[in-house]
Amino acid sequence: MGRKTDMVLAVADMAGTVLFAVEGAMAALKGGLDLFGVLVLSFATALGGGVLRDVLIGAGPPTALRDWRYPAMAFAAGGATFAVQVMVGQNPMDQVPMGVMTTLDAAGLSLFAVAGTEKALNRHIPPFSAVLMGTITGVGGGTLRDILLAQVPAILRVDVYATAALLGATVMTGAIRLGIQPRYAALAGGGACFALRMISVWRHWALPTAVGVTG
Amino acid sequence: MGRKTDMVLAVADMAGTVLFAVEGAMAALKGGLDLFGVLVLSFATALGGGVLRDVLIGAGPPTALRDWRYPAMAFAAGGATFAVQVMVGQNPMDQVPMGVMTTLDAAGLSLFAVAGTEKALNRHIPPFSAVLMGTITGVGGGTLRDILLAQVPAILRVDVYATAALLGATVMTGAIRLGIQPRYAALAGGGACFALRMISVWRHWALPTAVGVTG
Amino acid sequence: MGRKTDMVLAVADMAGTVLFAVEGAMAALKGGLDLFGVLVLSFATALGGGVLRDVLIGAGPPTALRDWRYPAMAFAAGGATFAVQVMVGQNPMDQVPMGVMTTLDAAGLSLFAVAGTEKALNRHIPPFSAVLMGTITGVGGGTLRDILLAQVPAILRVDVYATAALLGATVMTGAIRLGIQPRYAALAGGGACFALRMISVWRHWALPTAVGVTG
Repeated sequence: MGRKTDMVLAVADMAGTVLFAVEGAMAALKGGLDLFGVLVLSFATALGGGVLRDVLIGAGPPTALRDWRYPAMAFAAGGATFAVQVMVGQNPMDQVPMGVMTTLDAAGLSLFAVAGTEKALNRHIPPFSAVLMGTITGVGGGTLRDILLAQVPAILRVDVYATAALLGATVMTGAIRLGIQPRYAALAGGGACFALRMISVWRHWALPTAVGVTG
Repeated sequence: MGRKTDMVLAVADMAGTVLFAVEGAMAALKGGLDLFGVLVLSFATALGGGVLRDVLIGAGPPTALRDWRYPAMAFAAGGATFAVQVMVGQNPMDQVPMGVMTTLDAAGLSLFAVAGTEKALNRHIPPFSAVLMGTITGVGGGTLRDILLAQVPAILRVDVYATAALLGATVMTGAIRLGIQPRYAALAGGGACFALRMISVWRHWALPTAVGVTG
Repeated sequence: MGRKTDMVLAVADMAGTVLFAVEGAMAALKGGLDLFGVLVLSFATALGGGVLRDVLIGAGPPTALRDWRYPAMAFAAGGATFAVQVMVGQNPMDQVPMGVMTTLDAAGLSLFAVAGTEKALNRHIPPFSAVLMGTITGVGGGTLRDILLAQVPAILRVDVYATAALLGATVMTGAIRLGIQPRYAALAGGGACFALRMISVWRHWALPTAVGVTG
C-alpha cells in the first residue's frame, strides 16, 4: 500500500486500540475492580484478540508485545478512564451519546476484523481459518474481558456483533481470492462489517436463539 | 500404519469431532446462547483440546486451523443441532438413549486422548508431558466449553472422566516406550481409557473429594 | 552466573513451585473439587504463569512441559495436600501461621517475577513487554486458578500483589538496561517485589478502586 494509506491505517489501528481499552476500563469499573484490574482489562480488551490470533497462527511473540506502543496506549487509555472516573465521580463515557459510542465501536470492530484477516492471509493460513482469525481478532478481546469478569461472553448470547466481524472477514477473504487488491478488499470487508453492525443495532436485530423451546 | 488403518483412523477422528461438536451445541442450547454462541461452543468443544495441545507443544498453526474440514464439520454439526432444536422443539439428542451417548462419548474421549498422545510423542515431547498432552486433547475442549459458560469445568468436580483419558495416555506412552508398535499401543491406550470410563459410569465410581472434611 | 548461584536458584525455583502448588490445592479443596481437580489446580497455579509466558514469547514447548520434574513436583505437592486433608481432616496449612504463609508466598512471587523477566529479556523481548512477561509469570498461575474456579481473579480486585510483581519486573529490567549484572539486577528486582508485597500486607495497603463512585 502507499505511504499515505499506511499512515491512515496506523492511525486507525491506534484509535481502535484506545477505544477498546476505554471500553475494557469501563467494564472493569462497573465490576468494581481496582486500578490494576482496570489496566489489565484495558489491555485484554484492546489487545487480547490480536494476541490470541498471533498465538494461534504461531507468529511468535504477538505484535502487542513486540511493539511497546500498543500496550502503552492501552494502559494510558485505561488509566485515564480510571482517573476521570475517580476525579469527576462518574463514568467519563456517560457523557458521550450512545449512538456515537456504537458507531465508534463498530468502526473499531471492522478495523480489527479486517486487519486480523489480512495478517492471517499474509501468513498463508487457509481462507477458512483466516476468516476465523479475523473474527477472533475482532471479538477475542471482549471475550477475554468477559471471562476475566467471570461472565458468559456477551458475544455468545446476544446481538449481531461477532456475526458482523465474521461477515467482514469473509468478504475480505473472498475479495482477495477473487484477485482484488488488498486495499479494496479491506475496504469492502470493513464496510460490510460496519454496515451489518450498524443496521442490526438500528433495526434491533438479534441472532435466533432456541430459548423457550429448550425442554 | 497401513492405508486401511489410516482411513479407519481418519473416519474415527471425524466422527469424534462431530460428536463432541453436538455435545457442545447441546450445552450452548441449555445455556440459552444464540446461534453464534452455539457454533462457537461446538468448535470449542470439538477442537479446543487439540488447539490447546498444538499451541502448548509449539506445533505452529493448530491442525484444526490448517485443515478446513475440521472447523467445517464442527460448525455443520453445531448448526444442525441448533436447527433440529428450533424445528422439532426439543433437544435432538434426547431421543438417543443415555447409554448410547455415554458409549459414543467414551469412544470419542479414548480416540482424542490416544491421538493427542501420539502427536506429542512424534514431536519428541518427553513421555511425562506427552501423557499430559493426551489428557488435554481429550478433556481440553469440554473444559473450554465450561469456562465459556462461566462454570467450574465439570471434569474438575465429578466423575472418572479425565482420569480415564490420563490412563489411556499413560498406557499408550508406556507401550511405545516398551517398543510396542504404535498401532497396538494406540489400541491398548484407547481400550484402557474406554474400559475405565465405561466401568466407572456403570459402577457409579467417582474420584474422592474432601468435601465435608473441609474446615 | 556461578555454579553455586545456579544451584541456589534451582532450589528456590522448585521451592516456589511446590509452594504455589500447595496454594492451588488448597483453593481447589475449598471449592469442593475432586482429586483430579486438586491436581489440575496445583499444576495451573504453580506452572500456569510460566506456561503462559512461554506461549506468549513463542518459546516452543514451555519449560514446565519439557522438564518432567516441574509437573511432577506440582502434582506431588497437590496430591500430598489432598492426602493430608483427607487423613487429618483439616487443611494442612491451617497450622502454619498466616505470617509465614504470606512471607513464603511473597518470596515465591518475587522469584517467579524475576525469573520470568530474565527469560523474556534473554529472548530479546523488548523491555516494556519483558516487564509484562515477568508480571504474568508471577501472577498468571493464580489468575488461571481463579478462572478455573469461575471466579473473578483476585489480583484484579484486591491487594497490592500484581503491583509488587510489576515493580520487581520493572526494577530488574531497569537495572539490566543500566548495565548491572543479571544476578544483582535479579536481587534488586526480587527485593523490591518482596518488600512492596510485605509492606503492603503489613500496612493494609490496597490499590484504589472507584467503587461507590460508580454510577
